[in-house]
Amino acid sequence: MCGIFAITSNTKSAQLAHLGLFSLQHRGQESAGIAVDNCGLLSAHVGMGLVSQVFTDRNLSQLPGANAVGHVRYSTAGGSAAKNAQPLLCSHVHGQIAVAHNGNITNADVLRRELEKKGAIFQSSADSEIIIHLMAREKGPVENAIIKSLPKLCGAYSFIFLTPGKVIGARDPLGFRPLILGKLGKSYILTSETPALETIGGKAVREIEPGEVVIIDKNGVKSLHPFKKTGKTAACIFERIYFARPDSIVGGKSIQSYRYDMGRCLAREMKGIKADMVVPVPDSGNHAAFGFAKESGIPLKMALMRNHYMGRSFINFTQSIRELTVRLKLLPIKDLVKGKTMVLVDDSLVRGTTSRKITQSLRRAGAKKIYLALCSPAIVSPCYYGIDTPTKKELIANRMTPEEIRRYLGVDGLHYLSLDSLLQTSCGGRRDVFCTACFTGKYPARNPDVEK
Amino acid sequence: MCGIFAITSNTKSAQLAHLGLFSLQHRGQESAGIAVDNCGLLSAHVGMGLVSQVFTDRNLSQLPGANAVGHVRYSTAGGSAAKNAQPLLCSHVHGQIAVAHNGNITNADVLRRELEKKGAIFQSSADSEIIIHLMAREKGPVENAIIKSLPKLCGAYSFIFLTPGKVIGARDPLGFRPLILGKLGKSYILTSETPALETIGGKAVREIEPGEVVIIDKNGVKSLHPFKKTGKTAACIFERIYFARPDSIVGGKSIQSYRYDMGRCLAREMKGIKADMVVPVPDSGNHAAFGFAKESGIPLKMALMRNHYMGRSFINFTQSIRELTVRLKLLPIKDLVKGKTMVLVDDSLVRGTTSRKITQSLRRAGAKKIYLALCSPAIVSPCYYGIDTPTKKELIANRMTPEEIRRYLGVDGLHYLSLDSLLQTSCGGRRDVFCTACFTGKYPARNPDVEK
Amino acid sequence: MCGIFAITSNTKSAQLAHLGLFSLQHRGQESAGIAVDNCGLLSAHVGMGLVSQVFTDRNLSQLPGANAVGHVRYSTAGGSAAKNAQPLLCSHVHGQIAVAHNGNITNADVLRRELEKKGAIFQSSADSEIIIHLMAREKGPVENAIIKSLPKLCGAYSFIFLTPGKVIGARDPLGFRPLILGKLGKSYILTSETPALETIGGKAVREIEPGEVVIIDKNGVKSLHPFKKTGKTAACIFERIYFARPDSIVGGKSIQSYRYDMGRCLAREMKGIKADMVVPVPDSGNHAAFGFAKESGIPLKMALMRNHYMGRSFINFTQSIRELTVRLKLLPIKDLVKGKTMVLVDDSLVRGTTSRKITQSLRRAGAKKIYLALCSPAIVSPCYYGIDTPTKKELIANRMTPEEIRRYLGVDGLHYLSLDSLLQTSCGGRRDVFCTACFTGKYPARNPDVEK
Amino acid sequence: MCGIFAITSNTKSAQLAHLGLFSLQHRGQESAGIAVDNCGLLSAHVGMGLVSQVFTDRNLSQLPGANAVGHVRYSTAGGSAAKNAQPLLCSHVHGQIAVAHNGNITNADVLRRELEKKGAIFQSSADSEIIIHLMAREKGPVENAIIKSLPKLCGAYSFIFLTPGKVIGARDPLGFRPLILGKLGKSYILTSETPALETIGGKAVREIEPGEVVIIDKNGVKSLHPFKKTGKTAACIFERIYFARPDSIVGGKSIQSYRYDMGRCLAREMKGIKADMVVPVPDSGNHAAFGFAKESGIPLKMALMRNHYMGRSFINFTQSIRELTVRLKLLPIKDLVKGKTMVLVDDSLVRGTTSRKITQSLRRAGAKKIYLALCSPAIVSPCYYGIDTPTKKELIANRMTPEEIRRYLGVDGLHYLSLDSLLQTSCGGRRDVFCTACFTGKYPARNPDVEK
Repeated sequence: MCGIFAITSNTKSAQLAHLGLFSLQHRGQESAGIAVDNCGLLSAHVGMGLVSQVFTDRNLSQLPGANAVGHVRYSTAGGSAAKNAQPLLCSHVHGQIAVAHNGNITNADVLRRELEKKGAIFQSSADSEIIIHLMAREKGPVENAIIKSLPKLCGAYSFIFLTPGKVIGARDPLGFRPLILGKLGKSYILTSETPALETIGGKAVREIEPGEVVIIDKNGVKSLHPFKKTGKTAACIFERIYFARPDSIVGGKSIQSYRYDMGRCLAREMKGIKADMVVPVPDSGNHAAFGFAKESGIPLKMALMRNHYMGRSFINFTQSIRELTVRLKLLPIKDLVKGKTMVLVDDSLVRGTTSRKITQSLRRAGAKKIYLALCSPAIVSPCYYGIDTPTKKELIANRMTPEEIRRYLGVDGLHYLSLDSLLQTSCGGRRDVFCTACFTGKYPARNPDVEK
Repeated sequence: MCGIFAITSNTKSAQLAHLGLFSLQHRGQESAGIAVDNCGLLSAHVGMGLVSQVFTDRNLSQLPGANAVGHVRYSTAGGSAAKNAQPLLCSHVHGQIAVAHNGNITNADVLRRELEKKGAIFQSSADSEIIIHLMAREKGPVENAIIKSLPKLCGAYSFIFLTPGKVIGARDPLGFRPLILGKLGKSYILTSETPALETIGGKAVREIEPGEVVIIDKNGVKSLHPFKKTGKTAACIFERIYFARPDSIVGGKSIQSYRYDMGRCLAREMKGIKADMVVPVPDSGNHAAFGFAKESGIPLKMALMRNHYMGRSFINFTQSIRELTVRLKLLPIKDLVKGKTMVLVDDSLVRGTTSRKITQSLRRAGAKKIYLALCSPAIVSPCYYGIDTPTKKELIANRMTPEEIRRYLGVDGLHYLSLDSLLQTSCGGRRDVFCTACFTGKYPARNPDVEK
Repeated sequence: MCGIFAITSNTKSAQLAHLGLFSLQHRGQESAGIAVDNCGLLSAHVGMGLVSQVFTDRNLSQLPGANAVGHVRYSTAGGSAAKNAQPLLCSHVHGQIAVAHNGNITNADVLRRELEKKGAIFQSSADSEIIIHLMAREKGPVENAIIKSLPKLCGAYSFIFLTPGKVIGARDPLGFRPLILGKLGKSYILTSETPALETIGGKAVREIEPGEVVIIDKNGVKSLHPFKKTGKTAACIFERIYFARPDSIVGGKSIQSYRYDMGRCLAREMKGIKADMVVPVPDSGNHAAFGFAKESGIPLKMALMRNHYMGRSFINFTQSIRELTVRLKLLPIKDLVKGKTMVLVDDSLVRGTTSRKITQSLRRAGAKKIYLALCSPAIVSPCYYGIDTPTKKELIANRMTPEEIRRYLGVDGLHYLSLDSLLQTSCGGRRDVFCTACFTGKYPARNPDVEK
Repeated sequence: MCGIFAITSNTKSAQLAHLGLFSLQHRGQESAGIAVDNCGLLSAHVGMGLVSQVFTDRNLSQLPGANAVGHVRYSTAGGSAAKNAQPLLCSHVHGQIAVAHNGNITNADVLRRELEKKGAIFQSSADSEIIIHLMAREKGPVENAIIKSLPKLCGAYSFIFLTPGKVIGARDPLGFRPLILGKLGKSYILTSETPALETIGGKAVREIEPGEVVIIDKNGVKSLHPFKKTGKTAACIFERIYFARPDSIVGGKSIQSYRYDMGRCLAREMKGIKADMVVPVPDSGNHAAFGFAKESGIPLKMALMRNHYMGRSFINFTQSIRELTVRLKLLPIKDLVKGKTMVLVDDSLVRGTTSRKITQSLRRAGAKKIYLALCSPAIVSPCYYGIDTPTKKELIANRMTPEEIRRYLGVDGLHYLSLDSLLQTSCGGRRDVFCTACFTGKYPARNPDVEK
């Protein structure tokens, strides 16, 4: 997953992009970067690590320019390496261009091989580099090259391009990944999520539509729609469940309110459950646990304590210490837990390894009964559109029966939120709004690389 | 404030001390260090920054030894400098010694001047260096030197000393700062708080008593009581209100449960308040807000969102960016807040600057009415015993009338928890258990440096 | 200027490349890098700074592979930036390829624009990237693509390519830059200079011929000659005068012996000069000064002292300190200099600024008379083939008359070695062996980028 | 060995101290530091590594103050550790004090134990800390404390003390280590060697006398002589032979001229030797080789090439690579060496390991005969006064007979300069001027630590 951000016509564009990225840090902690357009000359600073590690006052001051684009990355394609850090800056027939990408191109390998046959050379292993190669083979101006190139891509993408004098945003026709248009004074902003606007004092204007391309230059914002409208979209349901910030506004409501409703639905589905308390796995289960407590009447207790100093702390350490990570990160509060029956609320179950460590530590702290309640159906298929899920084989729901999972996790009960309820809370129950491939195996877009 | 930790007779003493310090990181983020006793030869690694920044697998592996002592520091005396990082390792007539200190010696300057007159030279500006100078002038063995030296100190201290073959803990006679004895297999542990025990799989044995000195060597634990018992203690009430981890066990109960009760008392004192919701300032107000909601029946909402990627992020930045820190750290969730009347629960009010930024951002998000409820009385006197409060002049309660404060903060009401209620929840109402000097100005120990 | 090195079929290829680069460090101090071929998978580590700063035992151990290619760079084209550090590693239709380049392509801009028109995108501003783009448009196998691509390049190049299973070397048809084939056990080596062979215990086999392409794989060395032989070459005369290491073997003789002979010729041309001593500017004038002293009978004195701790020391400092650099680097030994008449021997005169500082410091130390003797004719034209000379305007020989130069430098006499003598010592006087464009303005190869 | 430097009354004191240390870098590469006196408040920056690694423009700018003292260290006592880096800054009854020390106190352990018995605590393992403890026990003013303390020290010391308003220099009564007084405008300078004066544009005034103490304050320079004059001194002869810079002025002559004379004496002692050339081991044998060539008439050839990029390069590497160090550092120039008979001139023979590697590489390059000529007698006793020689056992002259050494080194002849000749060149033959203990075992000062 990644976060992207751009701002135009601002004397402090790099500084504001830096703050924007800071607010999008939850979307990627592996690398960060900012590219700026200084009167037609583009330059960039990118690095591995957190936004706070990559940027200093000094290197930000060496990024002058009225327009800026930024990126935070958590690798899903192309591996973890310095050369894959974005924005990717290069030059071609249309001049210099920087690109920031959130999503995953599902025909990247196929296109790459075709392009290589035509003489293309690739500097990175990132799928994001494909679009620039496609553009380089189209006639200008640059927005034309983009419009000609996008239809050749399969999969998920929200792009921001920086070219001399322009910032261009594009979202795939199914709208897998978010992209928001905002404003701060005379400056326009593109961002993955709304809190990046709040942070710098800006305001949301609207979401970029699936399939829309927006060109922002000195004349303002121009909107193009190079794709035929189908009425169908495939927004990632996992942004709702887990990925987005609780204070992000989507569809006029905050993400936390959707999660609160998921918790209420969970409580209704688990009606009759007897427990002393509802316990969220912090922070991913917090808001759903609130909804569950409200709906069920069972009191909520913050009985798991999170150590906020973890960060990427144990990167320098051996396996033996890293295995203690969960114990360092989440500790039960003994006198709340001891002898108690509880509904433990979390967002989802992927491999099951972390959940198991949590339930084990609750047991050690004296928990009597643990019912695990999850805000999502069982995950049975990998994501090809940008979420970093493991292979089909590694997904616990494919490896064990529900009863085996229950015993593996050491819980007294395990409940998944039904897909119907999930969609009810998310979009009034419609089936053509969200991508739910991870629960159903029905992929809304073609995946040529996988098919090969 | 600081955190201290020691472990004995363990082949992985430095590794376990490292994990212990990690669990005490909330007590000090400025520097960290570990000293080890390798068959009688002491060595140490200390550095500026977080535990995760100071230590790597490699430098931990260069700290062999069966006994180890560790320290995390947030400077309260002596200024912020590398040479003040602890454990302080030096050699004198009793051989090598390393010391880790939590607290503040209130006659450090007076003693320093006396010692200098007798020929002492000081390497640091930390008050913690005094005790070693005093010991160096006493006859051995080392525990004797300690017992002779401690009574010369005024103020607050929990010490851990590492000497060849021994770990020695000492707590001042009024017990300002905590010190816990724990066990892991055959290893003994000394720690500021119990979660450091949980983290490494150890168990609490008991609290070291105020005025007690414990000597841990191959023969086990020996306890000495060099001070006359008075029945009076002066434990820091602020550890309860704010400083300690919610999952720390003190007096048989978790810190969060005390805070929950403070919130209940607050609700009783504010009986009749009309509000749509109770909102904690995360994370310091969380548990009290739960208690308040429970007692008042007003629903709790997590309407302030905390960005956990802050850490020490903005250390490299100019003032202009650092001023945005609160906005980056705490963002209101708009659709929860808009048009709502709320009780905002926090632990205390010191300068008032942060609280003001929070209430302003809630107002910007559309909050209708804000009642600020605090888990402590008004702070009117500085702490001389280790909490980093500002001077008397800077305390908002000394600078403004309650009405002026209310207007400065932009709230519709402001309620401090009464001292009676606070003591009721903390120790059944007794007045000779806790130091409450910050609320009353009555200091339980002499402060010779200040008197001069 | 740059240095390049490759070694094949060796279990310690990266370690040996590292040592090789160390011996070539004088050819480039800006960046260093090594790429390896690990059973068909190429990876690389490159960084800014000296070889000793870029590589550690740890990162070398993460470069496994039987074949390796290395590069040290001093930027002459493309600017100084991390992305220009070599070897450049990328992938195209022929698979992965890494390239290390010494020289300067004189139609890089022209080719770049043509390639961009055909859809190419460029990751760096280095001219070295061109060749990969050209290759990517040719049919395989890779050696075929190289042979088809080389004739499109103008200017100077010695290339080493690393591809799965092969190391390929190529030298431009005029042989501007050196390239040596060596052997160590069963391993073949390509290197810019012979000391890199000595360092690792290897032996020189022969020079790669101008216009030759060598393919080294498991079958041994195959040689191709894609260019028509003309009998003319244009080896850089400045490698002889200044750039190469004194212990490099070229044409069966060490570089120092050529320089010794230049000094003898200088002495003959300056016959009758009266001086107390011959003083070399260390280390560039050392060997010529020896020859001068021998021929003239005037005793040699090492009266200028070089501080070897300079390195890249003052990179972090302001202009005011950096201006003291020459004074820190070269100090006269007063009691040798005082009251003496001397012949000061140096390699060449470019801008004249450094020479002026040296003569000023000799004057301050009491030098009576200074005759400056240079091992090269006056430099009147910029180098387009890889030596970092300034623009025509900045060359002192274009800005001042000989008498003005003499006065500017504050010397009593100034003598340039004649081109005839230089060529006599270097190649028996032939005019079609060396490029002497910097002295004559007659460029042996076309310079399309400049012509535009 | 160490280098020390101080400057007074200068607005750029830290910057000038930095340049001074740079010129003294050859005296110590392990750590560097500068302390300044900013209107009575002392602060310091010290670090491990070269001057160019420890200091940046930024940290120098954070060292304001009119007086500054600097230090470069190569550990001889106390081990290599950050806490031993100097200047050592601490506070005692006379206020703050910083000390920089060159030399070795031979009763440090004895004094340390005595001081510890009286209650002293030691922060470092450096012998330099002793003097501050002694001073702390004397009555003020500070110069009085110094004069009372110095006579308690045995061994070798040149000290510079920085105290509020004063810079104080002191040299032991036998004058083992150098200390020079210089001037730059109104600023006074103390320095180990004169090139540090040249570098900043200053001039030498005189040498501080053995046993002299100079106090520099706003009133100028005051000189004290607390020791009885005996007429005997014991200047380190190794400073002449090896340690000092060739351009240092001592006794009115440059060090290189003494070394030139040693070479001439060597040639006379080896009269009749037949050789094709004289070859210096660069840079230690350079000047003596010149003298040898002049006296003998045998031509000098620079046939060993030194790689100046070595520095502390291989600190990050394993033993296997580090063993190649000599081969990387010194390479023979083959065509000069092949088939030739040579006199190889070096300063001295300690362990013999490096010399052996050099002669082996000359043999590999085809040298026919090698006569090794050394500018010093055989070294048979360790130095207790600051030169880092190994133990008696490790000295090759104690381990082997001359014939065994000759065979071990693989040379055809081995000649040591006689002590008589050495003293003749150094001081006209007097026996009471220099310490020659390393050749004779007769120590001019007591060595109480060793005697125990």
